[in-house]
Amino acid sequence: MRNGLLIVISGPAGTGKGTVVGKLLEKNPNIKLSISKTTRKPRPGEKEGVNYFFVSREQFEEEIKNERFLEYAEYNNNYYGTPKDFVLESLRKGFDVILEIETKGALKIKKAFSDAVLIFLLPPSLEELHRRLIKRGTESEDEIKTRLEIAKNEIKLVSEYDYCVINDDVDNAVEKIQKIIEVEKLRSKRFDIQSFLEE
Amino acid sequence: MRNGLLIVISGPAGTGKGTVVGKLLEKNPNIKLSISKTTRKPRPGEKEGVNYFFVSREQFEEEIKNERFLEYAEYNNNYYGTPKDFVLESLRKGFDVILEIETKGALKIKKAFSDAVLIFLLPPSLEELHRRLIKRGTESEDEIKTRLEIAKNEIKLVSEYDYCVINDDVDNAVEKIQKIIEVEKLRSKRFDIQSFLEE
Repeated sequence: MRNGLLIVISGPAGTGKGTVVGKLLEKNPNIKLSISKTTRKPRPGEKEGVNYFFVSREQFEEEIKNERFLEYAEYNNNYYGTPKDFVLESLRKGFDVILEIETKGALKIKKAFSDAVLIFLLPPSLEELHRRLIKRGTESEDEIKTRLEIAKNEIKLVSEYDYCVINDDVDNAVEKIQKIIEVEKLRSKRFDIQSFLEE
Repeated sequence: MRNGLLIVISGPAGTGKGTVVGKLLEKNPNIKLSISKTTRKPRPGEKEGVNYFFVSREQFEEEIKNERFLEYAEYNNNYYGTPKDFVLESLRKGFDVILEIETKGALKIKKAFSDAVLIFLLPPSLEELHRRLIKRGTESEDEIKTRLEIAKNEIKLVSEYDYCVINDDVDNAVEKIQKIIEVEKLRSKRFDIQSFLEE
């Protein structure tokens, strides 16, 4: 049984990661999404085990000690981490696994798993990102400015990623990511020459 | 104008490279095939400018001296080489260019053009390759044995290639190569971050 592919998807807030990943999962039963753990309190509408696993600070730190995370980081006094067991077990069973995580975590994953495939999802342009953030209406004008600055800094890390997909249209972006996954499985490094020659 | 992609396709004799590349060109007017030069005499049915450009030993050596080849090698006392001008000019015009060359030449190209994409075309199995060589009926039993030994040695070089495509079915193999080309264009290293940020 061949191991699945570990796929990391990052992208600035407002790029539409959630929608793209949702559609990707809907269309590909062989892909599983890793749900992160966090110590942050659930926001209205967020569901345990769907958006995050919500745990106490004590529990999170206990799990850090026991090396239960593939990667974790602290933002605004809250921990966020990728649970190790679910990911490794799913890969072993042959499922492809998606981590939807921010750039810092993504680069940690790349260091630890050289076989991971890192995809950066981009808005069609910074202007379009600006328009989308305004339309979303969840941030103040100042917050939107901050978001755009953060986005610019994140985009500077694109070169650390393997692929760069522009989300001009959700279906289009989903199709591109599907093709990336398919083509990554044709990489020579994933081909078992020995068993081919011995067959 | 973005440069085209330099694609190298290799694979053991009898794998069906010719048929796959022919169909790929037919379906993709944006892909050009590089025709090699050789000092070997044309075989019955071979056409100047279609299979090869046939030139004299003197002319070939003159062109080596003038650095007119991307790569060249000598086999059985005959030179074979990839003309530089056609390839570089086509890439500059935005065409993707295919080199259908053997493994030694392929690895030379990879050294000189780190951006080149190397694809190894494999038969479904060594047994199937054996059957195809017998069916082709152009080689004696001894020659077929030699071909299979050469094939095994070539296949050991698969790990030097970027991708490995099994030619179980021509249309299937063509589609995979098309996807590889499409996905390679999504690589971050080919993405112009600077102009995205400045737009």
